[in-house]
Amino acid sequence: MKSFGSDNHAPVHPDVLAAIVAANDGDAASYGADPWTAQAKRLFAEHFGPDSQAHLVFNGTGANVLSLGTLLRSYEAVVCADTAHIHTDECGAPERQLGCKLLPADSVDGRISVAAADKQVWGVGDEHHVQARALSITQSTELGTRYSLAAVRELADWAHGRGLFVHMDGARLANAAAGLGVTLGEASAGCGVDVLSFGGTKNGGLGAEAVVVLRPDLGGDMLFRRKQGMQLASKMRYAAAQFVALLSNDLWRRNALQANATAARLAEKAADVPGVKITRPVEANAVFAILPPGVTEPLQAQYPFYVWDETTGEVRWMTSFATTDQDVDDFVAALARLVG
Amino acid sequence: MKSFGSDNHAPVHPDVLAAIVAANDGDAASYGADPWTAQAKRLFAEHFGPDSQAHLVFNGTGANVLSLGTLLRSYEAVVCADTAHIHTDECGAPERQLGCKLLPADSVDGRISVAAADKQVWGVGDEHHVQARALSITQSTELGTRYSLAAVRELADWAHGRGLFVHMDGARLANAAAGLGVTLGEASAGCGVDVLSFGGTKNGGLGAEAVVVLRPDLGGDMLFRRKQGMQLASKMRYAAAQFVALLSNDLWRRNALQANATAARLAEKAADVPGVKITRPVEANAVFAILPPGVTEPLQAQYPFYVWDETTGEVRWMTSFATTDQDVDDFVAALARLVG
Amino acid sequence: MKSFGSDNHAPVHPDVLAAIVAANDGDAASYGADPWTAQAKRLFAEHFGPDSQAHLVFNGTGANVLSLGTLLRSYEAVVCADTAHIHTDECGAPERQLGCKLLPADSVDGRISVAAADKQVWGVGDEHHVQARALSITQSTELGTRYSLAAVRELADWAHGRGLFVHMDGARLANAAAGLGVTLGEASAGCGVDVLSFGGTKNGGLGAEAVVVLRPDLGGDMLFRRKQGMQLASKMRYAAAQFVALLSNDLWRRNALQANATAARLAEKAADVPGVKITRPVEANAVFAILPPGVTEPLQAQYPFYVWDETTGEVRWMTSFATTDQDVDDFVAALARLVG
Amino acid sequence: MKSFGSDNHAPVHPDVLAAIVAANDGDAASYGADPWTAQAKRLFAEHFGPDSQAHLVFNGTGANVLSLGTLLRSYEAVVCADTAHIHTDECGAPERQLGCKLLPADSVDGRISVAAADKQVWGVGDEHHVQARALSITQSTELGTRYSLAAVRELADWAHGRGLFVHMDGARLANAAAGLGVTLGEASAGCGVDVLSFGGTKNGGLGAEAVVVLRPDLGGDMLFRRKQGMQLASKMRYAAAQFVALLSNDLWRRNALQANATAARLAEKAADVPGVKITRPVEANAVFAILPPGVTEPLQAQYPFYVWDETTGEVRWMTSFATTDQDVDDFVAALARLVG
Repeated sequence: MKSFGSDNHAPVHPDVLAAIVAANDGDAASYGADPWTAQAKRLFAEHFGPDSQAHLVFNGTGANVLSLGTLLRSYEAVVCADTAHIHTDECGAPERQLGCKLLPADSVDGRISVAAADKQVWGVGDEHHVQARALSITQSTELGTRYSLAAVRELADWAHGRGLFVHMDGARLANAAAGLGVTLGEASAGCGVDVLSFGGTKNGGLGAEAVVVLRPDLGGDMLFRRKQGMQLASKMRYAAAQFVALLSNDLWRRNALQANATAARLAEKAADVPGVKITRPVEANAVFAILPPGVTEPLQAQYPFYVWDETTGEVRWMTSFATTDQDVDDFVAALARLVG
Repeated sequence: MKSFGSDNHAPVHPDVLAAIVAANDGDAASYGADPWTAQAKRLFAEHFGPDSQAHLVFNGTGANVLSLGTLLRSYEAVVCADTAHIHTDECGAPERQLGCKLLPADSVDGRISVAAADKQVWGVGDEHHVQARALSITQSTELGTRYSLAAVRELADWAHGRGLFVHMDGARLANAAAGLGVTLGEASAGCGVDVLSFGGTKNGGLGAEAVVVLRPDLGGDMLFRRKQGMQLASKMRYAAAQFVALLSNDLWRRNALQANATAARLAEKAADVPGVKITRPVEANAVFAILPPGVTEPLQAQYPFYVWDETTGEVRWMTSFATTDQDVDDFVAALARLVG
Repeated sequence: MKSFGSDNHAPVHPDVLAAIVAANDGDAASYGADPWTAQAKRLFAEHFGPDSQAHLVFNGTGANVLSLGTLLRSYEAVVCADTAHIHTDECGAPERQLGCKLLPADSVDGRISVAAADKQVWGVGDEHHVQARALSITQSTELGTRYSLAAVRELADWAHGRGLFVHMDGARLANAAAGLGVTLGEASAGCGVDVLSFGGTKNGGLGAEAVVVLRPDLGGDMLFRRKQGMQLASKMRYAAAQFVALLSNDLWRRNALQANATAARLAEKAADVPGVKITRPVEANAVFAILPPGVTEPLQAQYPFYVWDETTGEVRWMTSFATTDQDVDDFVAALARLVG
Repeated sequence: MKSFGSDNHAPVHPDVLAAIVAANDGDAASYGADPWTAQAKRLFAEHFGPDSQAHLVFNGTGANVLSLGTLLRSYEAVVCADTAHIHTDECGAPERQLGCKLLPADSVDGRISVAAADKQVWGVGDEHHVQARALSITQSTELGTRYSLAAVRELADWAHGRGLFVHMDGARLANAAAGLGVTLGEASAGCGVDVLSFGGTKNGGLGAEAVVVLRPDLGGDMLFRRKQGMQLASKMRYAAAQFVALLSNDLWRRNALQANATAARLAEKAADVPGVKITRPVEANAVFAILPPGVTEPLQAQYPFYVWDETTGEVRWMTSFATTDQDVDDFVAALARLVG
């Protein structure tokens, strides 16, 4: 099976799997007191700066909830895009876990503007209203776009000016940073992000996400929050090994570039198929499109992918490090056959 | 390093690791819609009965919280041993996640009696009191003992008679079932357990736990609870593969028997060292002991293990599938040298 | 001071206060086991039907949260108007207390349509999404309008058809029912409402709200939820006495009609002041208006009232049982002087 | 009916009721922005010191939960007596509302010692354990005893030395302070208490409790916590008026002394009845006793009171400001008749 359904349909990158296998070397301390975790932390500090602290967790929802939880009290709220994963795809985990309200701002192709975010900040100091206390942005976005560094900086400056912390959902930060040609640190701490959910799973991992606290004055309670939040792995070395692999030898970047390049190829070639309309800028590893009538279902029979918007029929195709040019060409050929 | 600190210091069993590697075969659907998860579910049904439903989760705390959460409303409470992991080692996750109170009953060597449990059930129907609604027992216990099947049945009958569900924390159920010479199903559903936390990690896994709902009328909301509880893995096939390996060819039993046997050997040989007192029955893969003065710290310098009770100096030694007879003999020799 | 700021600026109606004073008669059982609470429950049953059960609570937020809490699990969600009090004025209490997400639907003058509500119900059965499980409507609305009985029935039929319960925030149900010329029961249970928050405080009470469960199969856990939700009064007789007064001799209706009538008078007379625009239908006890520039602040210096929308300058004037025609005329005269 | 069941069976003191009636004077701002609340705050500051801040709430559970909630994060825990109201009589509200674990310490007659409290503080810094962060003591206790000021100071010094805040459940602080012959401030802030739940209801109120934050560096988020915690009254003037009455002219003290004196009289006279054993020191307004066989139920048929301990048959008799010497004498006469 070749899937364009999600980057989490991809397998584990061979180098990551090799790192896991290599970590299977005798006994080791649990809960992160092992050498692999120590090495992963060193690599995180290299990428995100010496003041950062990385905490490994199980999944993206866990990373987002723990990240926000260290910033917020329950009467405080999170401004996010109305398309944000925390708002639409986490089964209400942020509300449930944090007691906090999300304040969804209007977005365009997954990105929010300062103006849209600012409209969500009101009732400041009024006990009847939740108090906006964090801005959460997704980089790259759920719609396959990315923010420029200047745009992130502008949002962060606005947020800090209004007394909000800045959280970045970086489940696909690798795709954004690789696409922008910058380091992971430049794409996060470098433009004002305070706490980052950093994703390894979709970048070639087996199951490895991290909360990366980017300011030394934050996150001091993270060990307790992680444990109480059911996100503490006992045999942590195997998660750590994944990050060691991804953060070494630019593997994170190579994987992301491959995913981005195949998405770009897919968009370009699919756009040439008559009646196919690419609906969003393609700036990471997702392609959104509207297909001619009657094409979606038979194409899904050959390749897994999702209808993103039932009302318009817009579909989403995702690529990963494991997607090849040939995969793309085969997929577009199948699409063209169905259209033709 | 050879560790007697915890069975989660052990590596992954080679067969489990091989299963993970074999699962790394191209794209696969995420969130459990993959063939490996389907196969794991079939194996769970073979072991626990056709009416059971298994849900894979990340860790033991997650399994316990989701198990209890599907049984309880927030004003209800859990009767458990005062030594229960949920009570002493989960950083208050049950209270935080469920809003529920735990009602710790007096225990002896980790086991509770019907009489002790019954004392915790009071104020029934009185709105000022939490309402006991589940009994949670650990098998094998945190103190290295196990309940007989008759004891579990007696507790379950009592619980059901008082309107309580029965949860089993089976992080080490394999050790108990192997030691008792029964199947996993006989050790759980067979003696009245309603919902089980089943542990794979300490039995040779990398990180694989499961909520096993043993009655068809319970757990209908588990998919939503797992997602909202931040316990849903995207690339679930790799967790499933671990259970496929453990639940095939009696690997779970062989691993447990090895751990149990080395613990028994350790207890027997250590008891022969002058001044060493084994403090608990050794019925699974843990040995508790009190050592002569001045021995604990130098022994810890050679082998990791924990002081269980700071007030008495009682120590805990744990074995795993990866512990060998030679490991035990070397350890006891080191102990004897320090004592001698 | 005469206030048009809120109906909770009003004092206690003399008959209600007299009932409180009369209840101060020696010792009485606490927590609702007193004769006044028994009498209040009988009156609730007369008004809302023999299958209803009323539970007295402290305030409107408490009533809303307990009402919804008995209907929902934490992964379920509430469809409500984007102007709903639960969404905008309870400091996130529903999310915090229930763990549930609110799904705000577009509203017009505080009312939502079936179409708007229906757009919020999606992802049914998908574990990544919260599951819409209750519809909450406010009667009369936060914008001073009311639903017709047919409109409530249509919404309720839709909700039940989609598997949602129907909650009514009736903090001002009295105003709606009085305005519609129907009984309290006809305005709630009679058109499909399952659970009602019924407000006594704004209707002339001192502090008395109730959760009224309108179906015998719901709310069985309310006593425990009320206690754990910190909404159980010890000397409950004094809250009960308030409801006894309000629900006897049509006091609720007389109070509501007085508030409605003075609001209507205010709207009519203010509309005659040049440059004053009444912005919403006036169907209960609130009047919304836009005033000529420079008028709002000096008028606020004479009479307390709120600016409802900072962006448009729209103001809200509220009346209560205690508002007299003379109060209205004086207010409009002051307004006219400032405009003139 | 004369009740010895609870001090919340008592009516409202006439002076308190008169204050409520007097507050029913036209419109007033809601949510505490009224003159009565301002006056109550001034009186609280007089009693508890200029650095204290009082926040009115609905009931004792609300006061306790909000008090603790401003001190704790969810992974932190509360050391309290095993007889504490928060532990046994609030239906798990602290766990549910705060996510926090309670750590019950052994108590004698409702009082805990430093040694008993200290045993509950362990696992400090270990992420697997909840972190003790507050000590909560009840003054006067649930068992009718009180701590000396020196005992409170000793506990507070211990707590502060270990990094714990000190909370006092002062639902009956008036009884303790009156009995000790000290001011309310001396009984709380004066001996190291950081946050106080102060009870007005049992002292002659209708329903009035307060969170009194006794240190200027704490409680800054209380307004939001109170609103989100469903404890914000709209017509707050009526709660404020109760405290104005109680905190003026020593009414709190006179009410408490009357309750204490009648309890002392009851204990003394009941002890003279053959076979009646007073089981606890009588230092506030509760008397605990064991009666001859067959007496409890017929006595309950004449006077409401509770069996405190089903296993021993120990009963609790409570007095209030409204209990008279004649009430006591009649009660003891009835008791003597039944015994005789």
